[in-house]
Amino acid sequence: MEDYSVIGKRIPRVDGRAKVTGEARFAADYSFPGMLWCKMARSPYAHAKILNIDTSRAEKLPGVKAVLTGKDFHGWKWGWMPKTRDEGPLADDRVRYLAEAVAAVAAVDEETAEEATELIKVEYEELPGVFDPEEAMKEGAPLVYDHVKNNVSWEFHMDFGDVEKAFRESDLVREDRFETGRVITGYLEPPAAVAMWDGSGITIWAAKQSPYFVYRHLAACFNLPLNKVRVIQPFIGGGFGGTKNDSLAGDFCACLFSKMTGKPVKFMYNMEEVLKTCRRRHNMIIYNKMGMKKDGTITGMQSRVIADGGGHTAIGPLTMYLTGCMSTLPYKLPNFKHDAYRIFTNNPISAAMRGHGVTHTRFAAEIQMEMMAEELGIDPVAIRLKNAIEAPHETINKVTVHSCGLSEGIKTLAEDPAWKDREKKKGSGPVAHGVGLSGTAYLGGARQRGHQSCGAVVRLCEDGSVDYLTGATDCGQGSDTVLVQVVAEELGLGVEDVDIKRVDTALTPCDAGSYGSRVTVLAGEAAQKAARDVRDQLAAFAAEQWGVKPGDIVFRNRQVFVKGSPEKAMPFQKLAQAACYSGSGAVILGRGYSKYGIEVLDFDKGIGNAGTSYSFTSQLSEVDVDLETGFVKATDFVIAHDCGRPLNPINVEAQNQGAAIQALGQTLYEQFKMSEGKTLNPNLVDYKMPLSLDTPDIRVIDILTDDPDGPYGAKEASEGAIVSTPPSVVSAIHDATGIWFKEQPVTPEKIVMALKKKKENKG
Amino acid sequence: MEDYSVIGKRIPRVDGRAKVTGEARFAADYSFPGMLWCKMARSPYAHAKILNIDTSRAEKLPGVKAVLTGKDFHGWKWGWMPKTRDEGPLADDRVRYLAEAVAAVAAVDEETAEEATELIKVEYEELPGVFDPEEAMKEGAPLVYDHVKNNVSWEFHMDFGDVEKAFRESDLVREDRFETGRVITGYLEPPAAVAMWDGSGITIWAAKQSPYFVYRHLAACFNLPLNKVRVIQPFIGGGFGGTKNDSLAGDFCACLFSKMTGKPVKFMYNMEEVLKTCRRRHNMIIYNKMGMKKDGTITGMQSRVIADGGGHTAIGPLTMYLTGCMSTLPYKLPNFKHDAYRIFTNNPISAAMRGHGVTHTRFAAEIQMEMMAEELGIDPVAIRLKNAIEAPHETINKVTVHSCGLSEGIKTLAEDPAWKDREKKKGSGPVAHGVGLSGTAYLGGARQRGHQSCGAVVRLCEDGSVDYLTGATDCGQGSDTVLVQVVAEELGLGVEDVDIKRVDTALTPCDAGSYGSRVTVLAGEAAQKAARDVRDQLAAFAAEQWGVKPGDIVFRNRQVFVKGSPEKAMPFQKLAQAACYSGSGAVILGRGYSKYGIEVLDFDKGIGNAGTSYSFTSQLSEVDVDLETGFVKATDFVIAHDCGRPLNPINVEAQNQGAAIQALGQTLYEQFKMSEGKTLNPNLVDYKMPLSLDTPDIRVIDILTDDPDGPYGAKEASEGAIVSTPPSVVSAIHDATGIWFKEQPVTPEKIVMALKKKKENKG
Repeated sequence: MEDYSVIGKRIPRVDGRAKVTGEARFAADYSFPGMLWCKMARSPYAHAKILNIDTSRAEKLPGVKAVLTGKDFHGWKWGWMPKTRDEGPLADDRVRYLAEAVAAVAAVDEETAEEATELIKVEYEELPGVFDPEEAMKEGAPLVYDHVKNNVSWEFHMDFGDVEKAFRESDLVREDRFETGRVITGYLEPPAAVAMWDGSGITIWAAKQSPYFVYRHLAACFNLPLNKVRVIQPFIGGGFGGTKNDSLAGDFCACLFSKMTGKPVKFMYNMEEVLKTCRRRHNMIIYNKMGMKKDGTITGMQSRVIADGGGHTAIGPLTMYLTGCMSTLPYKLPNFKHDAYRIFTNNPISAAMRGHGVTHTRFAAEIQMEMMAEELGIDPVAIRLKNAIEAPHETINKVTVHSCGLSEGIKTLAEDPAWKDREKKKGSGPVAHGVGLSGTAYLGGARQRGHQSCGAVVRLCEDGSVDYLTGATDCGQGSDTVLVQVVAEELGLGVEDVDIKRVDTALTPCDAGSYGSRVTVLAGEAAQKAARDVRDQLAAFAAEQWGVKPGDIVFRNRQVFVKGSPEKAMPFQKLAQAACYSGSGAVILGRGYSKYGIEVLDFDKGIGNAGTSYSFTSQLSEVDVDLETGFVKATDFVIAHDCGRPLNPINVEAQNQGAAIQALGQTLYEQFKMSEGKTLNPNLVDYKMPLSLDTPDIRVIDILTDDPDGPYGAKEASEGAIVSTPPSVVSAIHDATGIWFKEQPVTPEKIVMALKKKKENKG
Repeated sequence: MEDYSVIGKRIPRVDGRAKVTGEARFAADYSFPGMLWCKMARSPYAHAKILNIDTSRAEKLPGVKAVLTGKDFHGWKWGWMPKTRDEGPLADDRVRYLAEAVAAVAAVDEETAEEATELIKVEYEELPGVFDPEEAMKEGAPLVYDHVKNNVSWEFHMDFGDVEKAFRESDLVREDRFETGRVITGYLEPPAAVAMWDGSGITIWAAKQSPYFVYRHLAACFNLPLNKVRVIQPFIGGGFGGTKNDSLAGDFCACLFSKMTGKPVKFMYNMEEVLKTCRRRHNMIIYNKMGMKKDGTITGMQSRVIADGGGHTAIGPLTMYLTGCMSTLPYKLPNFKHDAYRIFTNNPISAAMRGHGVTHTRFAAEIQMEMMAEELGIDPVAIRLKNAIEAPHETINKVTVHSCGLSEGIKTLAEDPAWKDREKKKGSGPVAHGVGLSGTAYLGGARQRGHQSCGAVVRLCEDGSVDYLTGATDCGQGSDTVLVQVVAEELGLGVEDVDIKRVDTALTPCDAGSYGSRVTVLAGEAAQKAARDVRDQLAAFAAEQWGVKPGDIVFRNRQVFVKGSPEKAMPFQKLAQAACYSGSGAVILGRGYSKYGIEVLDFDKGIGNAGTSYSFTSQLSEVDVDLETGFVKATDFVIAHDCGRPLNPINVEAQNQGAAIQALGQTLYEQFKMSEGKTLNPNLVDYKMPLSLDTPDIRVIDILTDDPDGPYGAKEASEGAIVSTPPSVVSAIHDATGIWFKEQPVTPEKIVMALKKKKENKG
């Protein structure tokens, strides 16, 4: 690999100082003179017809400036695809989940707005609800949408090769039922925005990980051209898909209130609202069937996925797509059949979340593969190496992999003392030690319909300092730092010379947003090209001065020089001064686009690439299981991650650690307790996420590959470990207890019960 | 001329709605939570040493958060050129004009800040002052700067041909003394800004016509890289050069206060502060000498200019340059000698103002030429046609003119009934009617050192709406509308399809700013190129779809079609959708730069072009003069203006009208009454500007030329009539009274005195 100055270095976050000093302003920190507060009135029923809404008492409350109900949006709905637009800013005729917003109030302060929501009198006709997706599919179940038969919100099918034949020809076939759990992103920054609507259109400072999504929704809802909608991105305190990657009732209501009142209008959801009403990861039931030869070769796999979609479709079709199309990685799979059903229920809406669509089916397949290997007496390392793909590889559904460090990762873990000496640590006391492995893949540089490009602009200031403009958003993952590194690298500067500007849909170049691990891969490519465009303009100027070819000009360590002619050198700053403004008079703007117009997946059939490239994660997890209390303590994780070239190893490490901790919570602790659509634990005491004391030591090993489609060979680095953690932890628990758990979270209660049952069976 | 759809049309202002509804936010309208107010403590002396400043009482006043004195800026000074940096944010050791800022206070509200300024105790040692520039040049006069001999702030000399020889060979030589008056821009929007300094650097919302000037000053003052200084331009309520084209004490103090307190800090000057301390037009004394042949041919001219510079240099060197270099237009001048002296006095600072540097010397030369023609019995039309240049033309100092509508303008006015029938209207009562002519030139597309380019970006939104990003600023002159027209024209759209964004030095492309009538000419060129860049990207896409050449694609009336193939057509919006985002996936960003790297003037010798092109204005003014009271009523102006192609005729008309009214005020009414450096009339009652009742009917006639250097042949249209009005009005007064007035303003008192004197001389 080439010798870079900034790329590949452990560079601290460019936004670190602002965040640790508290100077960084998040959406909820914005406040303007005369600003009104917007609050939602929410349904006490999970399923009900709205017969009438009487807002008169609320309107009369002093301080209330305006009240909205669903009718004020004239039936407008949004959704991920034109044919799935089923969600209105406020429910109009019917509520489909508990605490769905039915009206909104704008008032002079938060307390008054809150009080007014309680004065809104809604007449409901309660309807029978349905809360279990398997029940909801049955004939005669209550319908969430009258016209949607069996409550099937979306279905997705793949059928490649001949699974029946594969199973017939297998030495071992197994069928299991898996379930993944009801969890949420758990960021601490609340969804919030301040909207201002004036003659120039809408301006909204909104906590969004993909500001351009909201920009399109607002333009569509209010029938404005896109150049009249301006979404400005404050600092973002966590996204992880779902809520911050979509629009919210509050966004639309704040905008409309601002139009009605002429004032800036703010909303901020509290944690209870977030946990009760915001988008969750789909809970999925996976009936998985796998065939295997005696030597461990996987012959085929069939999955039937039933996902709890909640009351609206949201991004669900993509989730369903991902459950299947990514199942053909990371192991060779010659025959595959997949039937996924997203089911409407009267639960809160399910949507995207980190590891989108992949965590579920990979968990099922990974555990099942290991169960079968166990039956066949094959070692967890051997079964993975046997089946792992090697690059270049094309899956049966035409997913093309150009770089793959999976086998290397597995081998690295297999050589680790944690694996080699695992038997020594087993112990025989009340606390059993276990070690588990997993091997997984995730996509980076997500390709949606049309495979949208993204743009980047590099502005050279005449003093040699640089502004970087991107529409790509750092919602906490550290991508701003990576993009600044890319620009600095190309110009031979340091990260402190490059300032990245906050995203503003009116001014920064269009970008799809932060999802599908696309920022480093695609926005990184755009950044590289935009910086090279500036470099080329400067090199042409310098070459002319020195009478050499532009290609001979080198930019490094804030110096510009002619390769092989050390006397022809000058500081970057001096060149910038000479080449623009008071020198040549030029304005130097660099422009870069990521690749576009390339072949895109067949969304209906599950063929082709949903990503630009694929990361591979091998994970070793060590746990201590208290056999009396069922308490699991994850002690150590070793994550061997192939993200191509790590552009910022601290960031790669932190992303892997963060994803692993988030996944650990979902594997062991997190779970919404539900009763008839009601969330019983809408607070972070009862919905338990891992605390620092729950966190294992996490070692991240970079498995270096060089992907041809990423900038400097880079691939994704923020979602891999959320996929690899659950199976490796469950495998470790099995190693400690001898029991395979197929439902997340694996709670102490489940462990104690299973151990008890095992003992009884033995006894 | 080509047939355009948007260009050349009378299109109402794109900012009109926001301004008439009051929705447009000016700098003084900005307010943020926790914001502090900054106020200045000002010197009661015009010239004094500062011995000590005691801020302790101010600091103790409840609500005061910080206090600054000159020392807090560590001797930093700014100025137009490196060698003329003599102005500090606050005076440190010495005050050089009355009401110069010596300290500043930041407090919780405006009243507290104001009160605190009164508690600051400054110990002064008063120095003898000097207030008349001719006195100040004399040996032994008090020195404003100890090291500046004879108080000469700047001198500029030109010497082309042989004026002495020319005078010897002339049939008539005349010498006169002219004086132009002490006037100010008179905008109503106060200078104001809100500054915020945080970890990302400085952000300032400031009333500036050239935000990039302030951006450089703030970076230099606080030693920040340019990418850490962000100047955001609100709507601007008038600029006209001078104050809003420069930085102010308030700008620097607000920034430093924000750094000290962590709060946003606002300042706003009141009208008294503006009229007492803000930059004024230079009052100039012009000793002009002209030679003429019997037939009216001008043989040569010699000017000695003495300008009152006030206490600091500011942009004065450029003013001095313009007094001379533009004197060789609009008449053929084979021999020219020019000696200009800018003199420091203890008056407020003089700087640029609309018609910068040209109004003074053109007034002198124009009046003198007509006085001489009168002596030689030559008609005012004939003398002008005799000497007017014709394009192409190169002056003796190498000013190159590619288009010139002067003769056509003069001829048009000569054919006008107002001129032809002027004798009929003379009358014989107490009110005498007079008609006067003038012929003048002004530069457009000003070229400063390095001839800085400007950039433009056109962002195509995927719905076919368009964002236009420019660093060029509309300070009220209507340039936003013109730039939007250019973009719309190139893309075949309407102005309502293009949204122009407010200037933000961090995000919009670099631009020199609004001065020297450069926006239409240079930013217009950049806009045209950026829009063509988008058009080319779209045409390439459409051409591929249709199998034709990109050059055959036509954009018009929101349609895109193939020339000569009407079946190959689609709406622009549909093409935009197909060519970007959900279609091809491309991001389409257009980029354009105005020309740069071209030959620039020799500033020291007065050689070459200070502008890209030159407008020519011929004006006919009609006045009624009350011979008893001396009251002058301007009744009608006819302005024959060559601005090349008028891109927006309403705007051209309005600019000419506005400039003529402003000039009328300066010709007849406006005048700062001064006493020992003290402005006696710092309010708009006593400093009288023209009101609507004072305004004549103003007819603007477009003299069409097609300048090769302007977009669509356009030249400047906002400064010409401020140059042409004073001589034509003074000529009309002469026509009515038989008296030539050589000092502005021509007040009733002066007229009555002169009529009395004339009568006495006759009697």
